[in-house]
Amino acid sequence: MHRLRSFVPALDWGRRYDRAAFGADALAAVIVTIMLVPQSLAYAMLAGLPPEAGLYASILPIVLYALFGTSRTLAVGPVAVLSLMTAAAAGRVAEPGSPEFVAAALVLALLSGAMLLAMGVLRLGVLANFLGHPVISGFITASGILIAASQLRHVLGIEAHGHTLPELALSLGANLGDVHGPTLAIGAGALGFLFWVRRGLGPLLRRLGVAERPAAIAVRVGPILAVAGATLAVWMLRLDLAGVRIVGDVPAGLPPLTLPRFAPDLWLALAGSAAAIAVIGFVESVSVAQTLAAKRRERIDPDGELIGLGAANIGAAFTGGFPVTGGFARSVVNFDAGAATQAAGILTALGLLGASLFLTPLLHYLPDAVLAATIIVAVLSLVDLAILRRAWAYSGADFAAVAVTILATLLLGVEPGVAAGVLVSLATHLWRTSRPHVAVVGRVPGTEHFRNVERHHVETDPAVLSVRIDESLYFANAQGLEAHVLALAAERPALRHVVLMCSAVNAVDLSALESLEALVARLRDMGVALHLSEVKGPVMDRLARTDFLAHLTGQVFLSQSEAARALSA
Amino acid sequence: MHRLRSFVPALDWGRRYDRAAFGADALAAVIVTIMLVPQSLAYAMLAGLPPEAGLYASILPIVLYALFGTSRTLAVGPVAVLSLMTAAAAGRVAEPGSPEFVAAALVLALLSGAMLLAMGVLRLGVLANFLGHPVISGFITASGILIAASQLRHVLGIEAHGHTLPELALSLGANLGDVHGPTLAIGAGALGFLFWVRRGLGPLLRRLGVAERPAAIAVRVGPILAVAGATLAVWMLRLDLAGVRIVGDVPAGLPPLTLPRFAPDLWLALAGSAAAIAVIGFVESVSVAQTLAAKRRERIDPDGELIGLGAANIGAAFTGGFPVTGGFARSVVNFDAGAATQAAGILTALGLLGASLFLTPLLHYLPDAVLAATIIVAVLSLVDLAILRRAWAYSGADFAAVAVTILATLLLGVEPGVAAGVLVSLATHLWRTSRPHVAVVGRVPGTEHFRNVERHHVETDPAVLSVRIDESLYFANAQGLEAHVLALAAERPALRHVVLMCSAVNAVDLSALESLEALVARLRDMGVALHLSEVKGPVMDRLARTDFLAHLTGQVFLSQSEAARALSA
Repeated sequence: MHRLRSFVPALDWGRRYDRAAFGADALAAVIVTIMLVPQSLAYAMLAGLPPEAGLYASILPIVLYALFGTSRTLAVGPVAVLSLMTAAAAGRVAEPGSPEFVAAALVLALLSGAMLLAMGVLRLGVLANFLGHPVISGFITASGILIAASQLRHVLGIEAHGHTLPELALSLGANLGDVHGPTLAIGAGALGFLFWVRRGLGPLLRRLGVAERPAAIAVRVGPILAVAGATLAVWMLRLDLAGVRIVGDVPAGLPPLTLPRFAPDLWLALAGSAAAIAVIGFVESVSVAQTLAAKRRERIDPDGELIGLGAANIGAAFTGGFPVTGGFARSVVNFDAGAATQAAGILTALGLLGASLFLTPLLHYLPDAVLAATIIVAVLSLVDLAILRRAWAYSGADFAAVAVTILATLLLGVEPGVAAGVLVSLATHLWRTSRPHVAVVGRVPGTEHFRNVERHHVETDPAVLSVRIDESLYFANAQGLEAHVLALAAERPALRHVVLMCSAVNAVDLSALESLEALVARLRDMGVALHLSEVKGPVMDRLARTDFLAHLTGQVFLSQSEAARALSA
Repeated sequence: MHRLRSFVPALDWGRRYDRAAFGADALAAVIVTIMLVPQSLAYAMLAGLPPEAGLYASILPIVLYALFGTSRTLAVGPVAVLSLMTAAAAGRVAEPGSPEFVAAALVLALLSGAMLLAMGVLRLGVLANFLGHPVISGFITASGILIAASQLRHVLGIEAHGHTLPELALSLGANLGDVHGPTLAIGAGALGFLFWVRRGLGPLLRRLGVAERPAAIAVRVGPILAVAGATLAVWMLRLDLAGVRIVGDVPAGLPPLTLPRFAPDLWLALAGSAAAIAVIGFVESVSVAQTLAAKRRERIDPDGELIGLGAANIGAAFTGGFPVTGGFARSVVNFDAGAATQAAGILTALGLLGASLFLTPLLHYLPDAVLAATIIVAVLSLVDLAILRRAWAYSGADFAAVAVTILATLLLGVEPGVAAGVLVSLATHLWRTSRPHVAVVGRVPGTEHFRNVERHHVETDPAVLSVRIDESLYFANAQGLEAHVLALAAERPALRHVVLMCSAVNAVDLSALESLEALVARLRDMGVALHLSEVKGPVMDRLARTDFLAHLTGQVFLSQSEAARALSA
């Protein structure tokens, strides 16, 4: 039973559910629903899918996450970055707007859901850690720019396509003569209003004496006013007849039961993209969930999150949705509105179900330009070019990872961007550890401390060379160390002993062991003995499994000072 | 001048050259030449090239290495593994035996030479370190098996082709009915004789009172007897008319001037293979050169070796050769025969030039079966399956790298084998460092030592959690550490302070910094302060460039005992 409950956290919180929690959850659900209706339509548009797909992607997935996820406050549904990735991936195998495109989005949701589930069952959540902060920051920033650029066409009322910044810029530039006045007026007005809501409404409400939390919620829900106002304006002035693009008929009804198409070729073509969507979605969601959980001293379980998100995506695949994950904005609103348990999610799903049953006629005259404006305002808040400056100040390697990720994402597209960022950060990490800091050390007079001869006034013995290695020894640095020590030894004709001080060596792999053996043999050919000092327990255990210690020409000393005492004597 | 000399070591040793050194070098050159004539023909056959290519690949390349290389005793020329890799790579773009195949081998030599040269100028020799010992051992062993399998057809006198073990086995099996008796007799006889030379001749000579060095040289030069005997037998019995395959006409003359074909498509198709050949050749050569240099307290410079080997390969490309590198067997013979300087190489090249001008008629009746036998005997000495057992005893990660390299090389071919091995060793390294050893520590009573609470009887304070991290903090482990510490903190309701003991943290990258900042914030939300202790100088320097220390809720202590004293007070 305990085991089952660990897979289905709902069995745990469900037993202790009470009226107070229900009240809190219901209030949060109403607020989140109001926020989600336009957002869902907008992200469906961004993904290149019909508007109702956005609603569908927010119903069953929320319920499934509520049952299987471990965060009490995470709100699952379509998010900007995954919508962009879906558009890019599905766009490679089908024409946007075609039934094949919709089918590809379902397959992406199914595959990424299955991958998340598998990673959760195999407890491989740790794999997501290979997306370092520079890569994630760079990717989110570049995606924000790409998304904003891709939505400009709706605000301008022109055609433009592309999955990279140069494509989008060229395409926008070529059609700039076709700008549609009324659309631009609505779009620019919505942009202005939404930016004001985000920047100016909060301070205004607080000046008027509204408390912090309601003010924050009002800022999040404010965009509904732009949606309502613009819809009303288009309907009353019949601007759609003047060429303003509108959402149009949204079928009312329950989410449909959709079977993702089983076509091995299609699955294979989309597998890489699904993996990228799974990992990016997971990283984004876990970071939101962890932030919120820590605020209430709650815990989330990354492997449990994989299962919750996997179930949510599989749910999306079977109910006409597309890839989903835990979103930052909606989760913060849910949290601020006081959601107590995952039941808030279930109630939100009921709210959205109601919206898709009864509210769709009201959405008919909603102009695309306003949806695009809500997307642009949302994603521009993700753009953080200051990360470039921060990374530059911190280290060249981190700067390279950020810069390559941003450039590759903007110039080549979302998936090459992530891949390039991961490769650069792995390469710089390996490069750094392959050239460890190695210091010749000597005794600080009158103490048992041994420090770098180049930084401190220390005592050394011409017959004894003590070398401290500030890195675990593994294949990438083992031969370098060997060559380095041999070079140091060749410079010292009076040398009789070399001591490797291993206080920072956390591991020694087989390549490093071979290098150490070669070093022993080559130093022996020079008439020099090799000793070790301050070897850690786990490293010593491993060396003891081999005959290295038997072939060692010197000794293993517990401390460097002991080694110096014994060898200088 | 000093700068020039560092690129052309010959300017250095050449000025101090004297009669004694010349005598030593000349003797070594004669012995190496005798050994190299049949070996060169054999490796050309293995590479799928006409026999004279083997001689040509040993003339100008040796001279160029002598001028630019840094090892005094390395002997450069065709070697078994590179010949196999050449056959596989050229075989992908052309039919063996065709002019296109010969052209592809020239392009491989040119590209790998240019890559080696570029790596040398950019001082990127360190890149070769990413081939760990398990990968190299596994690759050499599997290549040895592949090479031996590929040569069996010459010993059996049948047709068989393939670049993987299953292909070769199936192909040999299908044609086993065609075994050619006289060829098999010659081949089996040569195999038996050569194995006896390798195993039995040395002990016999020593029993007869021959000194160690001449005996070792005799073992190396012994195969010439098999070559001479078999050639004589075929010629006298005219076994070629009975169907025994022979080397046939080898054109006599100087190495031709060949211009590698400039065809961008071909270059692109071969670039990956050339890179693999460059790296494998470099690793093999440097390890031989280092072993020999250490025996005489000489030094080699890996970046200088890149330049020497690069020049040698470019030389091979322009004189009808194919990829070359420093070979183990020939270098050891050169060393044992007393070569004093690189002039021994130049004299060897003159010897081989003489052979290609005047000796080629003598090679006409040399049977392919004997060449194949010399290859088989040479490569089987490279096969070291015991590495599997050693790696297994040492660690699962190293075993995985060896096993995957061997299997992938045998089943998929040489380049996929190396690539798979490198990927597995990188992945296991990253996996290990992504899950560092993290210990909760407490004070050993009466001391200032802090040790793992699970292994030692130590004193702890319920308000203070001290955690030691045995790894540098970087993107792959940063979030795991954050989650781990948060989980530990969530279990301890009385907790007020967390101390991260950083004695084994050699670096903190930007991702880890973000995780530490998140940890500070999340612990602060729990009412817990985060402190650091024993932070290394370089790490502290880097942290000081950021505002991390300003946001830190706790302090940075010089030592863990100081932290415990201050926080428990």
